[in-house]
Amino acid sequence: MLISSMPNVRYLSGFSGTDATLLIARHCKILFTDSRYTTQARDQAPAFRIITYKRKVEEIAGFIKKSRIKRLGYEPDRITQEAYRQYRRHLRGVRLIPLLDMIEKMRARKSGHEIKKIRRACRIAGQAFEGLFPQIAPGICEKEIALELEYRMRKAGSGPAAFETIVASGKRAALPHGIASKKKLRPGDMIILDFGASFDGYFSDQTITLCLGRPGRKLKEVYEVVREAQARALARIRHGAEIREVDAAARDFIAMKGYGRYFSHGLGHGVGLEVHEEPALNPQSTGCLKQGMIVTVEPGIYLPGWGGVRIEDMALVTKTGCRILTRSSGPIRAIP
Amino acid sequence: MLISSMPNVRYLSGFSGTDATLLIARHCKILFTDSRYTTQARDQAPAFRIITYKRKVEEIAGFIKKSRIKRLGYEPDRITQEAYRQYRRHLRGVRLIPLLDMIEKMRARKSGHEIKKIRRACRIAGQAFEGLFPQIAPGICEKEIALELEYRMRKAGSGPAAFETIVASGKRAALPHGIASKKKLRPGDMIILDFGASFDGYFSDQTITLCLGRPGRKLKEVYEVVREAQARALARIRHGAEIREVDAAARDFIAMKGYGRYFSHGLGHGVGLEVHEEPALNPQSTGCLKQGMIVTVEPGIYLPGWGGVRIEDMALVTKTGCRILTRSSGPIRAIP
Repeated sequence: MLISSMPNVRYLSGFSGTDATLLIARHCKILFTDSRYTTQARDQAPAFRIITYKRKVEEIAGFIKKSRIKRLGYEPDRITQEAYRQYRRHLRGVRLIPLLDMIEKMRARKSGHEIKKIRRACRIAGQAFEGLFPQIAPGICEKEIALELEYRMRKAGSGPAAFETIVASGKRAALPHGIASKKKLRPGDMIILDFGASFDGYFSDQTITLCLGRPGRKLKEVYEVVREAQARALARIRHGAEIREVDAAARDFIAMKGYGRYFSHGLGHGVGLEVHEEPALNPQSTGCLKQGMIVTVEPGIYLPGWGGVRIEDMALVTKTGCRILTRSSGPIRAIP
Repeated sequence: MLISSMPNVRYLSGFSGTDATLLIARHCKILFTDSRYTTQARDQAPAFRIITYKRKVEEIAGFIKKSRIKRLGYEPDRITQEAYRQYRRHLRGVRLIPLLDMIEKMRARKSGHEIKKIRRACRIAGQAFEGLFPQIAPGICEKEIALELEYRMRKAGSGPAAFETIVASGKRAALPHGIASKKKLRPGDMIILDFGASFDGYFSDQTITLCLGRPGRKLKEVYEVVREAQARALARIRHGAEIREVDAAARDFIAMKGYGRYFSHGLGHGVGLEVHEEPALNPQSTGCLKQGMIVTVEPGIYLPGWGGVRIEDMALVTKTGCRILTRSSGPIRAIP
């Protein structure tokens, strides 16, 4: 099998650079990379033979032909159509077999080592947030909050932030993906903070909704609906639970409270070497949760012109339930 | 034409989110995105009709069929083979025409607005480096340098850093892509610092090689070879110059000095909405530089077991020469 996806390459080999392809066959394990990464690849992927290329597809295909490989699996959703066409052209006589999501499905269930790294990322993010919290005050702009939070995560040992930190305050909280702007915080604003750290390549992801000053009646009501929806979904999580039913537990409650059309995204997703990975939790999901999966549970309600609330925690699926790895829920935190 | 690449989507529409596809046809300009981005897309891409999807390929293909489009260009190097297969299945009767690098080639030459944004990113990065410089001292680790530099760039108005800052000191400087490690700086270390800021989506990219204390004879020698190689390449840059010859100007000089096999990468690359974009500057490049292109010029020499030197500046190609947008070259800067 030919592995082109960098997270999959890292998962299988340990190599963390930005350009490499693995070839795993019965009698060989090769890591192809460019000359920038020769030394790093040797250090990080000792189980693989390292081959450096100048013309990627040509040289990899040449090696495959020489190895007399007759059937070759590949990742159709991780390789571009152009690269596929090039391999196809250079690999006459080799059967190319699309293996969709094969490695991704392996990655969904985490090993003990992986769980440790993810917990560490969660801890770093949590600490950074608690350090930041007393600094949040009227007049500070969203971008500054994002910057300080990311800086604190890095100081606490995080690798690159999991994604561009979302800070959406006041009416901007109605944007489910409100990248931090220059808007200043004002008394009475709700604030959606969606952030994640990384540790040794593994990510965390959580969302906290705060209020600057005392929350109004509407915010309290919406917040409690989201919180209860999240609690209901979390209560369904255990080894063997149908993913669709976990999603429905939150979604149906929000709909019952009259906010159904304002919860416009999936309930959650797996987290690991990618921030969004298998399994997806949404109404279209098929299949069951399995022990060792780590997923987010992040219901939200977004009311255009008013604002929004999202609460996101990460849960490790166990035999009988789940362990929650972050602390985003609880009564709404008001900044005095 | 169907446009799937996010930098190309941003270039053509202004939309800066992480998920969207453009359809540009004779009588319509559509931006397809998911529900997270409806509001943002309306704000940022007023020239486009916004359509929100739940099942991406199915709904986009449905729209194309309904519009009676018969021939559809697509980006073969920006679409996965899997997505291509899905479009292919849903678009019976539509001819799919691969248009390789079409938008990328348009993007290579920058407009006045784009140049302003890139210059701003360069200025931010330069300021941040000058602020950091007095702080560099023995005992500080590479990761801290990277973190402080990125923090200073953000404080100075940068968006997300262009890439993970490279700090490679002492023998680690032999790694052309030495991501900052926990290694502490020691007196006598050379330090390769490769970093970039962003402004409104446009990136900067530069590399400075420093020395902690007085540089030894070998470092001085290697540094001057790289510096002269860069100067020779820059002197060749102007509208109409053959890219291969610009690369050769640096490469041949390094080879003449006996370090040919230690300059293991291309001379440079375009910079804009992506850190690496058209044109590529290397011995395989065909074609000429054109007025308005912005490219890096970054020769390097890497000696395993000893260390390395890289000097990288960004140059705006003009009719008669180039304007240098960063200040990485000059005599080696020693930290007292």
